[in-house]
Amino acid sequence: MDFSAVQKPVRRELNAVEQHLRDLFHTPVPILNRVGGHVLAGGGKKFRPTLLLLVARLKGEPSPHAVLCAAVVEMVHAAALVHDDSVDKSLLRRGLPTVNGLWTDEMAIIMGDYLYAQAMSALVGAKLDMPMQVMARVVTEMSCGEALEFELAHSGDVAEEQYFAMVHAKTASLIGAACEIGAGLNGGAHNPARRKRYREFGEKVGVAFQIVDDLLDYLGEPEVTGKPVAADLADGKMTLPLIAALRQASERDARRLRIMLKRRRWAPGQWEALRTLVERTGGFDYARARAEALADEARALLLADPVAPARRALSMAVDYAVRRNH
Amino acid sequence: MDFSAVQKPVRRELNAVEQHLRDLFHTPVPILNRVGGHVLAGGGKKFRPTLLLLVARLKGEPSPHAVLCAAVVEMVHAAALVHDDSVDKSLLRRGLPTVNGLWTDEMAIIMGDYLYAQAMSALVGAKLDMPMQVMARVVTEMSCGEALEFELAHSGDVAEEQYFAMVHAKTASLIGAACEIGAGLNGGAHNPARRKRYREFGEKVGVAFQIVDDLLDYLGEPEVTGKPVAADLADGKMTLPLIAALRQASERDARRLRIMLKRRRWAPGQWEALRTLVERTGGFDYARARAEALADEARALLLADPVAPARRALSMAVDYAVRRNH
Repeated sequence: MDFSAVQKPVRRELNAVEQHLRDLFHTPVPILNRVGGHVLAGGGKKFRPTLLLLVARLKGEPSPHAVLCAAVVEMVHAAALVHDDSVDKSLLRRGLPTVNGLWTDEMAIIMGDYLYAQAMSALVGAKLDMPMQVMARVVTEMSCGEALEFELAHSGDVAEEQYFAMVHAKTASLIGAACEIGAGLNGGAHNPARRKRYREFGEKVGVAFQIVDDLLDYLGEPEVTGKPVAADLADGKMTLPLIAALRQASERDARRLRIMLKRRRWAPGQWEALRTLVERTGGFDYARARAEALADEARALLLADPVAPARRALSMAVDYAVRRNH
Repeated sequence: MDFSAVQKPVRRELNAVEQHLRDLFHTPVPILNRVGGHVLAGGGKKFRPTLLLLVARLKGEPSPHAVLCAAVVEMVHAAALVHDDSVDKSLLRRGLPTVNGLWTDEMAIIMGDYLYAQAMSALVGAKLDMPMQVMARVVTEMSCGEALEFELAHSGDVAEEQYFAMVHAKTASLIGAACEIGAGLNGGAHNPARRKRYREFGEKVGVAFQIVDDLLDYLGEPEVTGKPVAADLADGKMTLPLIAALRQASERDARRLRIMLKRRRWAPGQWEALRTLVERTGGFDYARARAEALADEARALLLADPVAPARRALSMAVDYAVRRNH
């Protein structure tokens, strides 16, 4: 599925976001420019800025403030990825070496700190109160999500509830923030019900997005996802397909699963055996169904706004979140 | 020299800062509370909050906003230390294990991110515009300082100018910010000249403070400083005493110094030989003189305000910065 069709109603603004990002990534320190240039080049599809701009577009032409906020949200996302990759010791992201892989963990800490600080500076400098309130809350929430993930990765069993709390804080909160900010711009700052609705929309999309990410860790092609296979399990991360599989499995299968989970390295045959077991116990089906249900709930929240190209694009963005293959 | 005498005029406010810090360090994630509790217990002397409150005190009773800002500045300082210790792979700070030492580098990243985020949230939540502007600028500057230090540590020779640029960004900027915020509170927000004067005061104190830190790395007693000896050199960091020594040394001594610098581990005798050489070439004297000159300039900036207990305490704080032994 092609994301550029989703982006069509805000294509011009997204180009302006790219320009903002180049400016915001520019620093007085040569090494930060080299590392930042690498992060910027690794780019990605600008999922969060796209949502922010599309939600703003529902109420008219997105303002230059919307463009700045979209750049800030992407910058916070980039900062979180740089720190996460260092926390997870990941060496590849979207098929490119990570900052900790190409430089060091030390440089990843510094680069992430710079990006967080510069993102907040941009909002403070433009005196954008509502986006500042939203982003300050969310950046705190995201670091709590990281801590929760750290705690769960070292705790053996993970309940579905804990998984959802972690995904909500770590991933969905920022996508919710992007949509809430989009709804609060273009005259929407004093419409708390609208802001809340789009925050919920974004959070549902965000949780669905992450479930699909976790499915892709099992079922994706490494050449397409740009990540090594079984990366989550190697980090000790139990995600929804496995949590559901363990709950739904017969006693014998659950025992087999638990033995397999003690592995840290996977030969292709062993990995295939685990996948078969998760498939048979309905772990993948359960995760897919949860993602689809969240996508349906998100789409329903769009119906309060009149039909328009931006609304259709937001609906397509939901489709994309649950049907993408990378 | 006893820092509690400096703190006397703002003792009550400093107790309120401690309470704020306990509240701000409290999170919904158990592991963050354990790690945060450790960071908080490691405490330190609250140098930056003390300066902020004393500068505010020059214009009357410090407001609850001043107390909140003092807590925020201390929190940003704590965040920077947690990340720095991980970047530098330091295992001890003030005689206690660091977060990366007691837990992992991963936890240090997460904890620092949380503290930065929570600090900005506190300012945003209280809608403190001026402190937000100052802190947003300074947090960006501090991460640039970290990057500069990273670059210099991997670049062999360091010019005095580069050293000062790094110290300014990494250490002095936050102390300058504390004093600028103090000057901007109590009705001072619209007195840019006063804010600028106290920012300069704080920056001068900050640079002097760091030079003394760098001297203590050579001359301090590990039992008093709570840090291992020669920690900077082991990290590849050239600081002012050594930069001055290399410049002032005879060709033969400079050659000897450069050979010594290739070491990464130091036996007591070798370390003593390096110290003797830096002493003989006047490296320590030069660094001490620079710190004292900055302290004099800082004290002179206080004279524009009338004599008062807070002014005397600020002058004593300058003495403390250059005469402390830990």
